[in-house]
Amino acid sequence: MKTPLLASSAPDAPEPLPRCPGGPVIGIIGSGDFSRSLSIRLVASGFRVVVGSRDPSRVPIGLFPDGVELRSQGEAVDGAERVVFAAVYPEHYHTLVGLRERLAGKVLVDVSNAARMNRVERSNAEKLAELFPQSGVVKAFNVVSAWALQGGAHDGSRQVLICSDCSDSKAAVLQLSRRLGFSPVDVGGLCASREVEEAPLHLFPTWGGPVLVTFLLFLFFYGYTFIRRVLLPFIDKGENNFTQLPLVAVNRALPAVALVTLALVYLPGLAAAVLQLGRGTKYQRFPVWLDVWLCRRKQLGLLSFLCAGLHAVYSLCLTLRRAAGYTLLNAAYRQVKAGVENSWVEQQVWRSDLYLSCGILGFGVLALLAVTSLPSVGNALNWREFTFVQSGLGYAALTLSVMHTLFFGWDFAFLPEAYPYFLPPMYLLALVLPCVVLVGRLVLALPCLTVRLTKIRRGWESARHRRPENLDAPGHCGDV
Amino acid sequence: MKTPLLASSAPDAPEPLPRCPGGPVIGIIGSGDFSRSLSIRLVASGFRVVVGSRDPSRVPIGLFPDGVELRSQGEAVDGAERVVFAAVYPEHYHTLVGLRERLAGKVLVDVSNAARMNRVERSNAEKLAELFPQSGVVKAFNVVSAWALQGGAHDGSRQVLICSDCSDSKAAVLQLSRRLGFSPVDVGGLCASREVEEAPLHLFPTWGGPVLVTFLLFLFFYGYTFIRRVLLPFIDKGENNFTQLPLVAVNRALPAVALVTLALVYLPGLAAAVLQLGRGTKYQRFPVWLDVWLCRRKQLGLLSFLCAGLHAVYSLCLTLRRAAGYTLLNAAYRQVKAGVENSWVEQQVWRSDLYLSCGILGFGVLALLAVTSLPSVGNALNWREFTFVQSGLGYAALTLSVMHTLFFGWDFAFLPEAYPYFLPPMYLLALVLPCVVLVGRLVLALPCLTVRLTKIRRGWESARHRRPENLDAPGHCGDV
Amino acid sequence: MKTPLLASSAPDAPEPLPRCPGGPVIGIIGSGDFSRSLSIRLVASGFRVVVGSRDPSRVPIGLFPDGVELRSQGEAVDGAERVVFAAVYPEHYHTLVGLRERLAGKVLVDVSNAARMNRVERSNAEKLAELFPQSGVVKAFNVVSAWALQGGAHDGSRQVLICSDCSDSKAAVLQLSRRLGFSPVDVGGLCASREVEEAPLHLFPTWGGPVLVTFLLFLFFYGYTFIRRVLLPFIDKGENNFTQLPLVAVNRALPAVALVTLALVYLPGLAAAVLQLGRGTKYQRFPVWLDVWLCRRKQLGLLSFLCAGLHAVYSLCLTLRRAAGYTLLNAAYRQVKAGVENSWVEQQVWRSDLYLSCGILGFGVLALLAVTSLPSVGNALNWREFTFVQSGLGYAALTLSVMHTLFFGWDFAFLPEAYPYFLPPMYLLALVLPCVVLVGRLVLALPCLTVRLTKIRRGWESARHRRPENLDAPGHCGDV
Repeated sequence: MKTPLLASSAPDAPEPLPRCPGGPVIGIIGSGDFSRSLSIRLVASGFRVVVGSRDPSRVPIGLFPDGVELRSQGEAVDGAERVVFAAVYPEHYHTLVGLRERLAGKVLVDVSNAARMNRVERSNAEKLAELFPQSGVVKAFNVVSAWALQGGAHDGSRQVLICSDCSDSKAAVLQLSRRLGFSPVDVGGLCASREVEEAPLHLFPTWGGPVLVTFLLFLFFYGYTFIRRVLLPFIDKGENNFTQLPLVAVNRALPAVALVTLALVYLPGLAAAVLQLGRGTKYQRFPVWLDVWLCRRKQLGLLSFLCAGLHAVYSLCLTLRRAAGYTLLNAAYRQVKAGVENSWVEQQVWRSDLYLSCGILGFGVLALLAVTSLPSVGNALNWREFTFVQSGLGYAALTLSVMHTLFFGWDFAFLPEAYPYFLPPMYLLALVLPCVVLVGRLVLALPCLTVRLTKIRRGWESARHRRPENLDAPGHCGDV
Repeated sequence: MKTPLLASSAPDAPEPLPRCPGGPVIGIIGSGDFSRSLSIRLVASGFRVVVGSRDPSRVPIGLFPDGVELRSQGEAVDGAERVVFAAVYPEHYHTLVGLRERLAGKVLVDVSNAARMNRVERSNAEKLAELFPQSGVVKAFNVVSAWALQGGAHDGSRQVLICSDCSDSKAAVLQLSRRLGFSPVDVGGLCASREVEEAPLHLFPTWGGPVLVTFLLFLFFYGYTFIRRVLLPFIDKGENNFTQLPLVAVNRALPAVALVTLALVYLPGLAAAVLQLGRGTKYQRFPVWLDVWLCRRKQLGLLSFLCAGLHAVYSLCLTLRRAAGYTLLNAAYRQVKAGVENSWVEQQVWRSDLYLSCGILGFGVLALLAVTSLPSVGNALNWREFTFVQSGLGYAALTLSVMHTLFFGWDFAFLPEAYPYFLPPMYLLALVLPCVVLVGRLVLALPCLTVRLTKIRRGWESARHRRPENLDAPGHCGDV
Repeated sequence: MKTPLLASSAPDAPEPLPRCPGGPVIGIIGSGDFSRSLSIRLVASGFRVVVGSRDPSRVPIGLFPDGVELRSQGEAVDGAERVVFAAVYPEHYHTLVGLRERLAGKVLVDVSNAARMNRVERSNAEKLAELFPQSGVVKAFNVVSAWALQGGAHDGSRQVLICSDCSDSKAAVLQLSRRLGFSPVDVGGLCASREVEEAPLHLFPTWGGPVLVTFLLFLFFYGYTFIRRVLLPFIDKGENNFTQLPLVAVNRALPAVALVTLALVYLPGLAAAVLQLGRGTKYQRFPVWLDVWLCRRKQLGLLSFLCAGLHAVYSLCLTLRRAAGYTLLNAAYRQVKAGVENSWVEQQVWRSDLYLSCGILGFGVLALLAVTSLPSVGNALNWREFTFVQSGLGYAALTLSVMHTLFFGWDFAFLPEAYPYFLPPMYLLALVLPCVVLVGRLVLALPCLTVRLTKIRRGWESARHRRPENLDAPGHCGDV
């Protein structure tokens, strides 16, 4: 089943492996899952593999692919031409110290992950480098799952973060990972290894804030509509509107959340522009909260799209509700009893058609925006196209959404009935922030401000500031 | 139009090409489509190209880009510095044997595809290597279409599978393909070439089984509803329900298919966990059917999403049907005649709002899952995020779908009218498997079982099994 | 905060940098935005950076990451081991001529963009190469935004177009960009630099034509329905149908646009086949208009999908309109007054259910097609799968759409009332082109034509043409 790569197994005398055309020999210490998956991928890419186990006779060889040799740990190290993987739990790194001499001069790859976040002062790779000062310790492949390793070339390229203090060893591992079909990225020295080890522990780190903001907005608007439309009428007049809770009230809160969240996408850009105008320079850092906010615009935009999409589906389901049928039947009954032949109200027809049109178009533009935030689509855009989509289409979506809300509200805002218990209609609350953003954008579009801002963004016009180097910086700086 | 790269054309004396800064010279034997597309890409990347034809005077040179030299086959081989492409039908490889001497020591790239699957005992590349034992034969570029070659760098990177028994030749082609903007993947020795040659013949190989299962489920549920709601009432009472066939019956079968298919996504994971618990080890291979099933979960999930999406659209169209209008008008007529002022049924309103809400939310979660199965989105997730999405959100979607169905059914299941001809309502049939999965998942979440399973999955706790090496394998093994 | 890389700063005597393990030293001339972003990425990938400014004391060092040394321009050039970036506006390239001697033998990277399209006779990189004839000038990184540079490895790979007349320098920059996590593509000599510089200025260059065609089609169909349904009835009988303008008329024009655009996707393929059949060879270039049209099929298809999607949403919103409610109430009133107990019309029920079914299925198939046009999904398909999806599913979508329209029209076309003012119903106009395409496809599927076309496409059967080399070209040529 397997031709022996190592003719004898005397542990201390490394004997030459036969130079068959199968490619270089890679060593792996450890015979667990990761070892198995890695050896499958290595063999598939034409490498030969020697796996070193503490007790090779007890490892079920059938789990490894053909072309893999199972030996003792020492033999595996000796058999490997240059690169040895340490596929062992970091808690057991100290059991390998006996191999220190044999590992000298070889590339030792640490593939371990951090057990939890922010707990250790030194990374596993740094500990390993301390134990084996004569080996070139490289941190790599930890972000790759055993699954992706086995999946092979057809699963699309995946990035491998690689760092090491030894340039030669790093170059060897960069090349190896490239031949396995991964896209290696050099992230510097071993000091970066802690961050690399913690990378797989992150759970959507950039989404926490935006999701919390969206959720709080939903709670506020849902609570507001509950109090105004359900609770107070019940207490006051004993009206039973509780059937509105699962669907109608949710569908009142969702568009408000979508609208405010979309405004939150464009607010920090305005704030940054105002700051730059006020300071007269772009060479001062923004406050941290603004920096973070600017980096979360994509997430806020996608959450706004999610809420808008749910609002669309909920609205389309409104006519499927039993309640809609009952309401219509009762209206028909009343119309017949009242003898009204034609109940058509021209103004209401215009109102409903206009707000539906604006809503559909706004949602369509938002959908285009969402599509361009897919990595593979966004990567195909150049920065000019990206700016056109994100800024141009974004403001178009915001404007259409505001118009959707205004047409929906129509003349409600001016009727006393719209303020029961002195609470204004919810759509008025939801309009405040978007209108502020739109007005702010229009003010910034005034020629005097645009010219000054463009100058500042191109680097010159530092006014009373100390930046004389206005000839630096090509024109394609990041947009704000 | 074209400066001659080869000063003279004496076939047997390879003369030096002028070392202009244009990059190395690549040879291509054959002047067909692939040759043309390849030379366009090579020239665009700064290489010079010599195309060898059996009768160069009869090839329309206008089809090749500037910078390509058209010569005889022998001259093309001589003119090439190192790499020569054999862009000739494999049936005609034997006509090249006259070039054997001249090709000695050069890299000969086979770009051909298999004519059909599983028909040959040896690949084209292996035959070519046999004909030219002194050349470094490399299999490459066959998975790339002529279209992608011409499309150039802007079309996004595409993987190129490369294999060869000669390491140096392989390295040269790896580098070449990288400079052309492709992502080469080393898939080992020439023994892998047959698989590489057959790769472009596959037609969605992983989709066959899941599509068949989904189609059979649809046939079953459609047939069941046809018999129960259309055929038997027609035979029994002469009721004409045939208008239900194109839309209503389809929309009854689709949700059932979506629900069962979604359950089928999570069933094999449970089966694997039960097997591992029973065996007390994870170091035994699963039966083949379970392995295949585990690898088809993504496809099943996407098909479930497709059915759920169609069900959503069909349901939203229900109110657009003429039949809906007629039903409502007739109901209004009856209500007026009966003098019922208010037909509102509180319980039915709650029921419809609750099942619509659960359906919308379940579909929304399923849509998020579908988005993360896009390669470019999934690749950006680390394994912890991937597990959260696939397992956490997946069970959330299943739970919401089951609730959607239960609210839809409400108290129907307990009414005798729901069992005409002793056939139970279809949604009860569709609920069996999902409920089994949910209950199974809850049982496995019992602390005693979870602890034991986690231990087994981490590699230790092999009980009566023969695995002593519990210090191997870092913690990021593939989930099941 | 920062260990000095350069011990002294005598401008003319380049002193050796300490060989700490941090990796090679890269020089950047200029201290603007791009310089800052580039140095952040370089430091993150383990390089050391020396930034050269005209007046280093006035540059706010806090904006640069740790590990960056700020010096004079000359010192930065001297400190750099091999690669120096010119991150200065091209208008100021002439201010760098004093560094010519110091830059001799180094790699000088031009990262600038063109200010506008088609305005210059020579690219910035060519000008730079003229100013520094002893340096290896390389054009690179201009397509990368400062944002993407800072974003680092986690933002997914982005292509970097690289060209140079000096092979060694190009190789150095290719390797550098690969280590920074980009996917470099060699696009040849400096003569390609103008195109590379203009790349970031393009604004969806392939979308202009298709968007214009779609817009004109929309104008035509919207205008036609406005005249036929609103204007002429108003002039003729004083009917006020203006409420149809925002939603109903749009929703009549959209499906017509979607149908015609979808037909335009498949028309050029037929035209190409007819041309090839007529000419008896595929080795003649198509006319330019046909070539351009063939390359715009994807865009036309996506625009057709967009229109179809909007049509679907608009149609689903029809029942949400106030007008729908009023119409139904008035119909109920009339039914009660007329004493009609059952208004059910079997034929209309069949008609509406059939056209809704065909529409939903056609849109579903179109959605699958749209998903495969996402770069990351399309890249995962081999050419056989791609052909199956684009051609097979495409014609399925077209057929279903035509059936949707025919069922919608039903027997309308034969009623005199359907031709008010002698204008035919719009759906008849929209059906002309799709029917031509479907019939043309059926004719081409006749065995005699298919056999001949397949022969021509495989390269042989050139009839009276001059192509004898029928053994070239492997079988995976681009489809038409």
